[in-house]
Amino acid sequence: MPEPAASCDIQIRVRYSETDAMGFLHHARYFIYFEEGRTELLRRNGLRYRDMEQRGIFYVVARLECRFRAPARYDDLLTLTTTTEKLTRVRVDHRYKLARDGQLLAEASSTLVLVGRDGRPTSLPDDYFETLSGATPQPR
Amino acid sequence: MPEPAASCDIQIRVRYSETDAMGFLHHARYFIYFEEGRTELLRRNGLRYRDMEQRGIFYVVARLECRFRAPARYDDLLTLTTTTEKLTRVRVDHRYKLARDGQLLAEASSTLVLVGRDGRPTSLPDDYFETLSGATPQPR
Amino acid sequence: MPEPAASCDIQIRVRYSETDAMGFLHHARYFIYFEEGRTELLRRNGLRYRDMEQRGIFYVVARLECRFRAPARYDDLLTLTTTTEKLTRVRVDHRYKLARDGQLLAEASSTLVLVGRDGRPTSLPDDYFETLSGATPQPR
Amino acid sequence: MPEPAASCDIQIRVRYSETDAMGFLHHARYFIYFEEGRTELLRRNGLRYRDMEQRGIFYVVARLECRFRAPARYDDLLTLTTTTEKLTRVRVDHRYKLARDGQLLAEASSTLVLVGRDGRPTSLPDDYFETLSGATPQPR
Repeated sequence: MPEPAASCDIQIRVRYSETDAMGFLHHARYFIYFEEGRTELLRRNGLRYRDMEQRGIFYVVARLECRFRAPARYDDLLTLTTTTEKLTRVRVDHRYKLARDGQLLAEASSTLVLVGRDGRPTSLPDDYFETLSGATPQPR
Repeated sequence: MPEPAASCDIQIRVRYSETDAMGFLHHARYFIYFEEGRTELLRRNGLRYRDMEQRGIFYVVARLECRFRAPARYDDLLTLTTTTEKLTRVRVDHRYKLARDGQLLAEASSTLVLVGRDGRPTSLPDDYFETLSGATPQPR
Repeated sequence: MPEPAASCDIQIRVRYSETDAMGFLHHARYFIYFEEGRTELLRRNGLRYRDMEQRGIFYVVARLECRFRAPARYDDLLTLTTTTEKLTRVRVDHRYKLARDGQLLAEASSTLVLVGRDGRPTSLPDDYFETLSGATPQPR
Repeated sequence: MPEPAASCDIQIRVRYSETDAMGFLHHARYFIYFEEGRTELLRRNGLRYRDMEQRGIFYVVARLECRFRAPARYDDLLTLTTTTEKLTRVRVDHRYKLARDGQLLAEASSTLVLVGRDGRPTSLPDDYFETLSGATPQPR
């Protein structure tokens, strides 16, 4: 059993295809990294998002916000910290920090809500909720 | 009823997000344009690929080939010519020419095969085949 | 001379490559559409962002925020409304509304700041500022 | 000093954003993986492509070809084998094999040519050529 974790770090190297004519990591690509961060945070807690989807449970993004502090470039090795801030049975809030060699490049937050195959709101099954809520601070 | 057409031209403007640090349209993005060309060629023939998928019929890419002659840049207005070269009930071959102001930038070809929801080979329904084969040269 | 405009609508058709396994337009792709909206809003005012970059003036994204109301799907024809909310010589704030057949799918806002080739803050040249500020509400 | 290597394997996990509505890794994304393979093959030989670009030497893609054998899906952990087939001072040919658990998913090849900042053909500097040609079969 993995230790429950509300946060995890992953390393991401900037691909050439993710840069733009300015020579920087394109701003839309940060959200792709954040999504990878969420996938890996689940995995650290022994869960796979792909299994959730096979059970007909989907997290859809309801809100995104990002502040860009400094640019990243091709081949930079970045550290992404993904943190679950608040988890309920119907939604989850995350925070993200993207850094290179200790320098903060971007800070972001997201809200995801749960839907079923029909696109209607649904709630997290007991087994997922127990694992994930053991790992994250509870809303009061 | 639209005239059956084996070929169509569309205009595509290069987005900033599609460029790379070299300042050029990134090579992987050409294939996204070619896919858009196929969608629009079907539409010119009165068909929508989205309707095919709703009927459980999917075109999957089996082969791609592209020769890059000259670079495209951000904000360039390009003309993509998509041509059906050969159509059978189980596969289709296309050719593509991408140009800017009459200058050829890239030439490509693709082979797509038909699969069902289960990923197994399937064949084009009669109504699609009749419409599309009326528009394209027949293999001998 | 075009009429100065603080807002413009463009039509965008969702590409297959922009969808994800959920069958929806992927959330990171919305920001690519918003960037296209900004490019076209400049063009309606007789300016080209590519010319700005050739003069060594770059708009970089400092902040993005988006609320997703309803999903978009492959081949949907969307209307994006891009509005300049506030313009100074060193930054610009935009708002975006993305809709399909009158149904609001997403609302967003962004802040861009001006930098030079060296990545340092710079300000908009007089000719750009005059054209654009004629088109947008002035900050007080 | 690293051992000269004509080939290297890297692991790539399929991101959600790289899938499409069919549920598969989108065909244009394979070329992004191949580019990452080339970057890592250089790194195994003690070179960084970013350093080449800073010296004003750019590899541009002249030709791509890919055969798709079986689909990849979200969260699949893939192994990409990138091999330098032929290296001269003005061009390089690579081969790629993408597999999952030993099953071949795609085979591809590419030709890249060297250009300078002005977009004109140029040739590989001596130090790069010596390192890389030590690692790859020589053309006759």
